[in-house]
Amino acid sequence: MRAIFVRKEEFQVRLVERIEKQINDLSRFTATPGKGTTRLTYSKEDLLTRNYIKDKMMEYELTVREDGLGNIFGKLADTVKDAPSVLIGSHFDSVPNGGAYDGPAGVIVALEVAALFAENRLRPIYPLEIVALIEEEGSRFGGGLMGSRGMAGSLSEEDFKSLKDEDGITTIEAMSKIGLDSSLPKKRAARTIKTFLELHIEQGPILEEKNIPIGVVEAIVGITQLEVTVEGKAGHAGTTPMDRRTDALVTTANIISRLPDLAIEEGEGTVITTGRLHVFPNGANVIPDKVVFSVDIRSGKEEHISRVIKKVHELIDSYQDQGFQTKAEQLLYMPPKILNEEIGALLKEKCADLGIPYCSINSGAGHDAMVFSDVTDVGMLFVPSKAGLSHCPEEYSDARHLANGVQIFYEVAKRLTEVE
Amino acid sequence: MRAIFVRKEEFQVRLVERIEKQINDLSRFTATPGKGTTRLTYSKEDLLTRNYIKDKMMEYELTVREDGLGNIFGKLADTVKDAPSVLIGSHFDSVPNGGAYDGPAGVIVALEVAALFAENRLRPIYPLEIVALIEEEGSRFGGGLMGSRGMAGSLSEEDFKSLKDEDGITTIEAMSKIGLDSSLPKKRAARTIKTFLELHIEQGPILEEKNIPIGVVEAIVGITQLEVTVEGKAGHAGTTPMDRRTDALVTTANIISRLPDLAIEEGEGTVITTGRLHVFPNGANVIPDKVVFSVDIRSGKEEHISRVIKKVHELIDSYQDQGFQTKAEQLLYMPPKILNEEIGALLKEKCADLGIPYCSINSGAGHDAMVFSDVTDVGMLFVPSKAGLSHCPEEYSDARHLANGVQIFYEVAKRLTEVE
Repeated sequence: MRAIFVRKEEFQVRLVERIEKQINDLSRFTATPGKGTTRLTYSKEDLLTRNYIKDKMMEYELTVREDGLGNIFGKLADTVKDAPSVLIGSHFDSVPNGGAYDGPAGVIVALEVAALFAENRLRPIYPLEIVALIEEEGSRFGGGLMGSRGMAGSLSEEDFKSLKDEDGITTIEAMSKIGLDSSLPKKRAARTIKTFLELHIEQGPILEEKNIPIGVVEAIVGITQLEVTVEGKAGHAGTTPMDRRTDALVTTANIISRLPDLAIEEGEGTVITTGRLHVFPNGANVIPDKVVFSVDIRSGKEEHISRVIKKVHELIDSYQDQGFQTKAEQLLYMPPKILNEEIGALLKEKCADLGIPYCSINSGAGHDAMVFSDVTDVGMLFVPSKAGLSHCPEEYSDARHLANGVQIFYEVAKRLTEVE
Repeated sequence: MRAIFVRKEEFQVRLVERIEKQINDLSRFTATPGKGTTRLTYSKEDLLTRNYIKDKMMEYELTVREDGLGNIFGKLADTVKDAPSVLIGSHFDSVPNGGAYDGPAGVIVALEVAALFAENRLRPIYPLEIVALIEEEGSRFGGGLMGSRGMAGSLSEEDFKSLKDEDGITTIEAMSKIGLDSSLPKKRAARTIKTFLELHIEQGPILEEKNIPIGVVEAIVGITQLEVTVEGKAGHAGTTPMDRRTDALVTTANIISRLPDLAIEEGEGTVITTGRLHVFPNGANVIPDKVVFSVDIRSGKEEHISRVIKKVHELIDSYQDQGFQTKAEQLLYMPPKILNEEIGALLKEKCADLGIPYCSINSGAGHDAMVFSDVTDVGMLFVPSKAGLSHCPEEYSDARHLANGVQIFYEVAKRLTEVE
């Protein structure tokens, strides 16, 4: 027993070191060095990260390909033809000035599961396939979950092509700039996927407060993202009396200052956030004639979400009587999702086998797993986030917790690929 | 009499045509074609406009030079050595997406006064000097009135050098990029200026409503510009409960939504505007950790301004108890200014002589004239703004009103330069 125990400890130390190295390596691919990870989809930093992941996939004996969205796949070779894959992965883009874990941690965990398959020379019946997804955050093209929605077919080829970033660059142009082929297939037939597994950092305070290293996700909150435009009239800041103004920014301020109450009134964990806002023309002595801002609404039950959306629309529309033109476009609507119970049970069974404490948890963030739950069976794990922080440079999760994820997914993947 | 009347009419028609052509020519030097005039200081558009003005000055037989700020001077040659100049001019920069008149109209009027001096081969005792000033709007480097403040010495060499635009480019770097020499003198000795005359569009509705073609400015409102920073904590939009947020944008919205009431409470034409605002990191699913915005406060009496500044500080500081870090930096403070009464009387006398209806008026906007009133005698004229609009592409003033300005300034300049 002693020898085996030592070997296991040694193995874990090596795994933790490998994970830490990869987190560290990937964190260097940022447009804002010293100010967190800024990795926009199809950017130079995307390309550097992409090449790193593809190299790692090849090192772990996977066959690499990219689809027409730029998602990266690494498939364990020599498995049964046309059998559906057990997909494991997450996304590799980031928010502006985000952290090093949101996304990449799940990609690295998936890669390390493949490494174990390779080291142990496993040849499963159902192929193991690692996936690294694009544009989950929507930081470049808006909406988010683009890689998974494109694969699942809920983002059509046409809609994909019509998306532009803030500089007016289309998805197709941006892909071509880093050498990606947008003419390759995007949608992936549901029958080619047996299961989707994703590990992600919690991005909230619950696991850390409970001191539990693994959360087995049972449900993911629904998410709506609106893009609101308020248009008034420009004018000189000095010569336009207060009672003659149609100031788009003051009206926007009135709207945003009332949004938190709409969430608090609704309760049950409902949250509303305005994260992005642009003022036009944005000169200190010009009354703004236009403001465009995001409204992100999340809740665990669809009834809460619909009620809050309705109230937000009413609030915004109420300014139309006062000379403002307003519109609220829905960029994203994802209903709350209950994940597959059998996969959940299997994840818990393996946690127990490995002696890793776990609990059930709901996700307050949207994830690609949510999109895949429409087309396949999905399982998801959370690891603790230090101080609950995420989407900021301080984001941190212990590599030992990520190593737990590798071990759990390795055991679950062996079962699901029927290698055992 | 008939013959003279026809000649005068012909002259006016030609003058109006010349003004219209120059307004039209300059309006093409914009970074936003089809969307108004965007002419930031030391930009490519600044350079094109600068060259146009310098060419015009040379055409009108003026000796051209630029100072260490990039202000352009055209002096009538062969006048008495060391006699102080009668300066006439305005600025040639614009706000983003502004109009074709705010600034350039006054430069063109000044040039046409010089044209009349040249045509009539006048050799005055005191030199006539046309000036085209930089960065009055503060759209690139903040604060505004930079050309006149640098000349008057209220902006020091050191402060000038420390200014940066939003991309971190310093004044010196930007000047050098368009071939300007920042090592030339900036401050101009008060003894070298006898008078400063400026024509500007009203940028408000008063003259148009009264149907009076000329306003003789008696006072300019005081202006304060604050740059406010609100810092909170970033976090994930989905996983941070409403009661755990320190959302810099919601607090900013609360502040901005209350600013109009502070102005309305104060009354007597007091105005407050937030025209510029930046959110950080500005991603749809990240709780903003920082917002930086401008607060522009104007009023005709100093007591109103100081009281409103105090209230704005109190309002902003009140959020420090709630976990926010706030600061409000004063970028600009200009007290209200009463312009020279003798020059005002002379302007009115010449209006009467020329049969041009006029009225007294106060300026709600800040102007370079305000800065020069600290170092010399200042006179200022307003012409009507269509629908009172300014700082927008719709900005318009009739060239016939500008031609009135040329004739009034021509008569006044003859008197002040002692040519008669």
